[in-house]
Amino acid sequence: MAIPIQPVEITRVGKDSHESVPDLVVSEEPLEIRIGHGLEGDRKQFSLSVTMRTPGNDEALCIGFLFTEGIINSMADVLSVKYCEDLGRKEGMENLMRVELQPSIEIDDQQFKRNFYTTSSCGVCGKASIDSIKVTCDPIESEEISVAKALLFEMPDKLREAQKVFEHTGGLHACGLFDLEGKLTFHNEDVGRHNALDKLIGSLLIRGSVQASGSILMLSGRISFELVQKALRAGIQVIAAVGAPSSLAVNLANEFGITLIGFLKNEKFNIYTGKQRVVA
Amino acid sequence: MAIPIQPVEITRVGKDSHESVPDLVVSEEPLEIRIGHGLEGDRKQFSLSVTMRTPGNDEALCIGFLFTEGIINSMADVLSVKYCEDLGRKEGMENLMRVELQPSIEIDDQQFKRNFYTTSSCGVCGKASIDSIKVTCDPIESEEISVAKALLFEMPDKLREAQKVFEHTGGLHACGLFDLEGKLTFHNEDVGRHNALDKLIGSLLIRGSVQASGSILMLSGRISFELVQKALRAGIQVIAAVGAPSSLAVNLANEFGITLIGFLKNEKFNIYTGKQRVVA
Repeated sequence: MAIPIQPVEITRVGKDSHESVPDLVVSEEPLEIRIGHGLEGDRKQFSLSVTMRTPGNDEALCIGFLFTEGIINSMADVLSVKYCEDLGRKEGMENLMRVELQPSIEIDDQQFKRNFYTTSSCGVCGKASIDSIKVTCDPIESEEISVAKALLFEMPDKLREAQKVFEHTGGLHACGLFDLEGKLTFHNEDVGRHNALDKLIGSLLIRGSVQASGSILMLSGRISFELVQKALRAGIQVIAAVGAPSSLAVNLANEFGITLIGFLKNEKFNIYTGKQRVVA
Repeated sequence: MAIPIQPVEITRVGKDSHESVPDLVVSEEPLEIRIGHGLEGDRKQFSLSVTMRTPGNDEALCIGFLFTEGIINSMADVLSVKYCEDLGRKEGMENLMRVELQPSIEIDDQQFKRNFYTTSSCGVCGKASIDSIKVTCDPIESEEISVAKALLFEMPDKLREAQKVFEHTGGLHACGLFDLEGKLTFHNEDVGRHNALDKLIGSLLIRGSVQASGSILMLSGRISFELVQKALRAGIQVIAAVGAPSSLAVNLANEFGITLIGFLKNEKFNIYTGKQRVVA
């Protein structure tokens, strides 16, 4: 696939300089996910979501999104996923994916909207969010892992080296999966950090299994609640990031026994939860 | 208002060190916005959106969101905005805002969902998004401004100095409005960069006018399509950011004649569009 970048002409300004030069920016386009049920010929469908994303790995993005939102549990729930071809229209087709699900999969639009932000009467709070995840997210039983400090130190550079689009544009979030020997096994980039992680998890599912419990997830930026929730759904036990975690990210990781590491750079890091998995 | 931070106990790890220390993380909580029509006693309401945000300035966040999404045009459209008090329930009330709108304001849920991501038959694309904004967003007529290079150079440090929560946690996006003398007049922080900008624009509206065409908007991170769209709605002519812009951000700025500046740091920057407003 082509690297999703757009050439632009910019004016580069320094203290005493001023020059017109060609440059590159990262592509950002909306992606609409439409859900159909049953056979392809059936034209009934509805729009599930629109996200601003970097084009590329769109099948993985759809699959990962449906999985981390709890709509599908495996590829067995998916009949097909492809660019929409209704009306034979060309323009914009690459920004519209249609996913056909097994007729048995039901989606309640309202329930979907609230999914991980349960509202009961007039009370929404972080506590309620975490409680609802306890119900909707079965903990994946997995062997305990441990990760060496020295391996963690190396991960930011390894992820950065793999970030081809960032290299050109400086405009992307990245996430990568590392095995316990410190090898980068999967990675994705996107203008949206949640998209990058959905693409990664979707890629795992398309290859056959989302079981990532023996891997370390490395994030290029900060750690939000949403990212921990997605990692949890994929059975990930260790999350490390270059940036800071939020309060709800720490609370969710703590509740589910995930190891959460932030500010991983320059051979230093902070462990927020699950420190037993980090060894010298 | 209290600074929205949560104390945590962390393990700080260095190459040859390992110590438990108290630390702070930035608060992240969901905020649900509910819309009611007519008088307060009227119990009819519906949930418009849920966003993960840093608590604080929630009225401004709601107002700014409704404005930048094109639902309201001024405070005259708003009867009241306050924390939900249904059922007298305490827990979570601070994460639920109810906005009463003038009965004349109609919101079509489906239309809202698609708002700036117009779908026609089976075509969603960046072009369609920009076209739909052309229709929904009247250009604000304003006097042309220009901004001195030296003032731009100083803005990142000034914004950083004002970032109180970032200072404690390293976990926030910020945005600030500068006047043409380089004075920071408004600023906001949030875990979500779109929330930070909605809070800023909402604050302007609550004070009486959103007209920000004589100001420069400074962003602490990258520039997405969504941020340019929000700035456009507030009549902003110059956007400067520490990070990179996306393709759709550049295209939108170009289409509407906004000056877009990225990588503003260390006395350097790139001008992507609207260079005529930058003077030596």
